[in-house]
Amino acid sequence: MEEYIGIDVGGTNIKIGVVNKKGSLLKKEKHPTKILRDTGNFISEFVKLINLELKENPQIKKVGIAVPGMISKNRKTTVYMENIPEFNNVDLISILENKHPNTSFFLENDANAAAIGELHFAKNKVPKNFLFMTLGTGLGSAAVLDGKIFKGGNGNAMEAGHIISSNGKTAEENMGKKALIEMALKKIKKGQKTNLVSKNLNAKDIVIAATNDDPVAVEVFEKVGFVLGETLVSTLRILDVKTVFIGGGVSKAFKIVKKNMNKVLKKRLPEYYLENLDIRLATLGNDAGIIGAAALCFKED
Amino acid sequence: MEEYIGIDVGGTNIKIGVVNKKGSLLKKEKHPTKILRDTGNFISEFVKLINLELKENPQIKKVGIAVPGMISKNRKTTVYMENIPEFNNVDLISILENKHPNTSFFLENDANAAAIGELHFAKNKVPKNFLFMTLGTGLGSAAVLDGKIFKGGNGNAMEAGHIISSNGKTAEENMGKKALIEMALKKIKKGQKTNLVSKNLNAKDIVIAATNDDPVAVEVFEKVGFVLGETLVSTLRILDVKTVFIGGGVSKAFKIVKKNMNKVLKKRLPEYYLENLDIRLATLGNDAGIIGAAALCFKED
Repeated sequence: MEEYIGIDVGGTNIKIGVVNKKGSLLKKEKHPTKILRDTGNFISEFVKLINLELKENPQIKKVGIAVPGMISKNRKTTVYMENIPEFNNVDLISILENKHPNTSFFLENDANAAAIGELHFAKNKVPKNFLFMTLGTGLGSAAVLDGKIFKGGNGNAMEAGHIISSNGKTAEENMGKKALIEMALKKIKKGQKTNLVSKNLNAKDIVIAATNDDPVAVEVFEKVGFVLGETLVSTLRILDVKTVFIGGGVSKAFKIVKKNMNKVLKKRLPEYYLENLDIRLATLGNDAGIIGAAALCFKED
Repeated sequence: MEEYIGIDVGGTNIKIGVVNKKGSLLKKEKHPTKILRDTGNFISEFVKLINLELKENPQIKKVGIAVPGMISKNRKTTVYMENIPEFNNVDLISILENKHPNTSFFLENDANAAAIGELHFAKNKVPKNFLFMTLGTGLGSAAVLDGKIFKGGNGNAMEAGHIISSNGKTAEENMGKKALIEMALKKIKKGQKTNLVSKNLNAKDIVIAATNDDPVAVEVFEKVGFVLGETLVSTLRILDVKTVFIGGGVSKAFKIVKKNMNKVLKKRLPEYYLENLDIRLATLGNDAGIIGAAALCFKED
């Protein structure tokens, strides 16, 4: 079975995996991004990793690379990565193709790659049009329309995390990790009943507490549900799709999120949008980044 | 020079015109929509109008039709028109093609048609990617991406008028004609200095007053600028375009609108979006509907 290399470049780690045509992760490795950056030669170190991987897997002729930021519309050049400035304006695909003329390289934004991963490998049947939202440190988003990533005018469409909500904050300012922690701390400080402790509180704690019905954590995700609902209203009005994938940390508390989200959708959307609206959890889990990157290689199949 | 028939179907009037390849309106006529509806045979009366027009202009082989509502993704069938329920779920293109097998018919939503009109006939050079917003009774919107109407997943993308603003109302609830009048009346009632009178106040009065520096009217359009700015932020984050056309009644008060709009854009958008951002007035004016409908005929050129 044909195999691909999928590379998920993140601010913390660069994950590299070998993925087969069915979307199974055959092996993976992790390299701290900081170590590559600290060499002062980030790009050449990154290219070296790929050289090595291709040498170890001579049967592989296609490599997909997912990066956390903006890229050119033709998918050849990186444009802007807030967390990896060494990656700004790099002619990445040309560099790699010159080094490996018999290998095809595919570049995509990471949220887009994860959406393409769901398109090809989701556990249930996936339609050709859907919105993908993932709540991690921030709120990532992507849309697949007619089976292809929606690129917008200049290549970097779908920053739904920056849509304005009714409280004047953006979706991400309301729902990103930082916001979840701030919300919980405020409630703890007010003396609301909770098992959460303010010291070193992180977003994972709040998710776990919410699944255990902790009242403060539940309130936090009720608020998330309200804002997610509003963000979906604005986004669906622009995209006209019927299927939404929700991924990332929030998905574990989705049972709580759902209630307010649905309330907002019902209040704000007419029948045309609500009919057959299908909001489901993303299915690829922890390795979505690598698998999504590998799925980019399907482009020319 | 090749000529086209452009038909702009509105809730009040059906406007039919002959337009040449340069976008010049050669002749036009107007039929009150109500008269056609009152016959009880809206569709067959509508088709009769087209038959007549084609008989009078035997040289014309292409007809573009713009309708105020939702249509099928393949642009053959009308789906939902709030103000002309007779037009819901009509297999319009088949009906017309059966009657006129040697004529091509093109169906499009009216805001989309107006955007296509600007694409082909705007007074200045138009890029292949832009957002189009027009403030009439409500807030219409469309996007042209890579020179084509952006249809989204199911064909009816771009309802930016229903994006939620920071005051919890939608863009249209904040900026539609009804909202402008309510805003002005509230200020008049409060006793704010103005030359506007509450009796039979309409949106046009407020626009004219604003251009004459009437303090209440100016405040109304300052508010419009703020909400338009927010709506643009959310929309541009999803579409990633650099050019925005503003049309409709608001454009006459755009000098006032602009100030707050720009303030919001500068506050909310990073450099990537602001660089070369070009927000300009739509150019086709009163006959944009007919000319836009005729421009649909360029599709197969």
